[in-house]
Amino acid sequence: MKVEAGQALSLATELLEARGAEHSNARLQAELLVEAELRGHPSHGLQRLPRLLARIERGLVAPNATGIQTWSGSAFLAVDGEAGLGPVVAHAAIEKLVVRVEQTGIAIAGIRDANHLGMLALYAQSIAQRGLIGIVLTSSEALVHPYGGDKAMMGTNPVAIGMPTSGEPYVLDMATSVVSMGKIHDYALKGEPIPPGWALGPDGAPTLDAQQAKSGSIAPFGGAKGYGLGLGFELLVASIAGTPPAPDVRGTLDADHRANKGDVIIIVKPGSAGVGAIVSGYLDMVRDSKSDGDAVTIPGDRSRQRRQHAISEGFEVDPRVWDELVAAGSNVPASVRKSYHEHV
Amino acid sequence: MKVEAGQALSLATELLEARGAEHSNARLQAELLVEAELRGHPSHGLQRLPRLLARIERGLVAPNATGIQTWSGSAFLAVDGEAGLGPVVAHAAIEKLVVRVEQTGIAIAGIRDANHLGMLALYAQSIAQRGLIGIVLTSSEALVHPYGGDKAMMGTNPVAIGMPTSGEPYVLDMATSVVSMGKIHDYALKGEPIPPGWALGPDGAPTLDAQQAKSGSIAPFGGAKGYGLGLGFELLVASIAGTPPAPDVRGTLDADHRANKGDVIIIVKPGSAGVGAIVSGYLDMVRDSKSDGDAVTIPGDRSRQRRQHAISEGFEVDPRVWDELVAAGSNVPASVRKSYHEHV
Repeated sequence: MKVEAGQALSLATELLEARGAEHSNARLQAELLVEAELRGHPSHGLQRLPRLLARIERGLVAPNATGIQTWSGSAFLAVDGEAGLGPVVAHAAIEKLVVRVEQTGIAIAGIRDANHLGMLALYAQSIAQRGLIGIVLTSSEALVHPYGGDKAMMGTNPVAIGMPTSGEPYVLDMATSVVSMGKIHDYALKGEPIPPGWALGPDGAPTLDAQQAKSGSIAPFGGAKGYGLGLGFELLVASIAGTPPAPDVRGTLDADHRANKGDVIIIVKPGSAGVGAIVSGYLDMVRDSKSDGDAVTIPGDRSRQRRQHAISEGFEVDPRVWDELVAAGSNVPASVRKSYHEHV
Repeated sequence: MKVEAGQALSLATELLEARGAEHSNARLQAELLVEAELRGHPSHGLQRLPRLLARIERGLVAPNATGIQTWSGSAFLAVDGEAGLGPVVAHAAIEKLVVRVEQTGIAIAGIRDANHLGMLALYAQSIAQRGLIGIVLTSSEALVHPYGGDKAMMGTNPVAIGMPTSGEPYVLDMATSVVSMGKIHDYALKGEPIPPGWALGPDGAPTLDAQQAKSGSIAPFGGAKGYGLGLGFELLVASIAGTPPAPDVRGTLDADHRANKGDVIIIVKPGSAGVGAIVSGYLDMVRDSKSDGDAVTIPGDRSRQRRQHAISEGFEVDPRVWDELVAAGSNVPASVRKSYHEHV
């Protein structure tokens, strides 16, 4: 079914507010989910909301916590997320970093005990839109098998990079797995088979069954190199955020455990003010570099086009997901229900 | 022909000293080249030395420059490399960063006007051996075609990550191209065809001819993701070091131009002292994770084994490369010759 951005944003915000989230926190979380839908990544969109609502109801998410922030070094912000919403804790950290980086030139946040960040592109983009360079990493449950291995031992270890240009920022957001587990869930939800090479089943043998893949393991992208890079990112997050490696991570795909993954946000001030124009000029050269005149795609280009289209035309949502959300509106446990008086 | 590490190190050091490099600088540069040979990467080894010697002779390298270091932020070291040797300028920057990071928690150097760093693994390893996390990026000439493109528009955009463990550090060092241009040169030197999928010729069509590939373009690794990541690293280096994107870079593969690529070194202090043991325990779990009992390889493992073997058994060098180096010993232009009196 077709849904409009405003409609989805209102519903998601209300569902979160009804469970005690203050408006600004609910809105920030809702935007993350709706932006993922607009950009064509339903795996990071509304289908994650029912689980998030259940997590709040069970006390696994404290929807108004912004995190305890400690400068363990003058450019190193150690954040105890207090079980807060991922976007709320991360944005609070970013606000601190963007101020500090003016003095230090680079600043980093290591975040533990916050919930799922959602699509990393938005954080990188928001940093780049302030004229700063952003690098975002996050860890997850063990979902990916090592190159040459046959068991899930690593997270999907995504990375986002945001770079200011003189126009729209360069925004890269990618898992170091051949596909995100979110997309496997998306295939499972649709009951469609996954392409060959994506995953192994729980027995370690290749599978095309999305359900088997969910309890098996996804391949790293790009063979040995992608594996090495994913493992490197995994170790960076664990060492910087002080969080466990993937096999001990819980709480981004379930409604039973407090989230113990880690997030790392690095912000760098570009070397000079003229860099944006140089980057834009170069990216245009790359776009126009093909002999036959076809445009070469720059990461972020297609996502922006899809977003533009979805803003005006709406986006497709699985009716089961939408129905579940609508039902959640009239099904708020009394223990977490926010009364009118608390609300104002 | 078989060469011993000590023998290669002495010859390379002497050749550099004969052209005016102080002993410690010559030794540092020579070690970079010999370590690459020991680890099985001749593309970053002795075959690069004749060009480097020619560059010194032509005044394109100032062998004793350590770089002008300016703290543009309290954790951001902007380095003007003064045409120094890559390893000399980079190690001088690392010395500053490792002190500063104790206060700041993270510190970064953006380096311009230094020569080729060589194998990045050694820098990452040296940082990790001090109990710190190292990330190293460097840019290069346009050698790689975009995913979906057919012309060289990007550098090979390598990344190295060094992580302290309770044993040997985790050291990843990889180009974001499917192969390094150094390896293509290696194939060209041996007159061997390159594997399919590695490169396009200057006409934009796939080629197996290493000579054609040298004047054509290499593929990014891992398809669209590897391309996006390489492009992201390219933009990071350009924006942080203030150096041009690949199409305008010169001086790492020729003896005609001053090097104008950029280098970025990031050092992070791990969140807690106990992290090394956690990382080691996790890496051992990954090594032992395969159902059939075969070991899963961790980046750096094979390289360490090769190094151990080459230390005791020596390593193979193309006799033409060795002959050229030996000849370079008795063929020092008077203009750069270091006299005994200057030397002491």
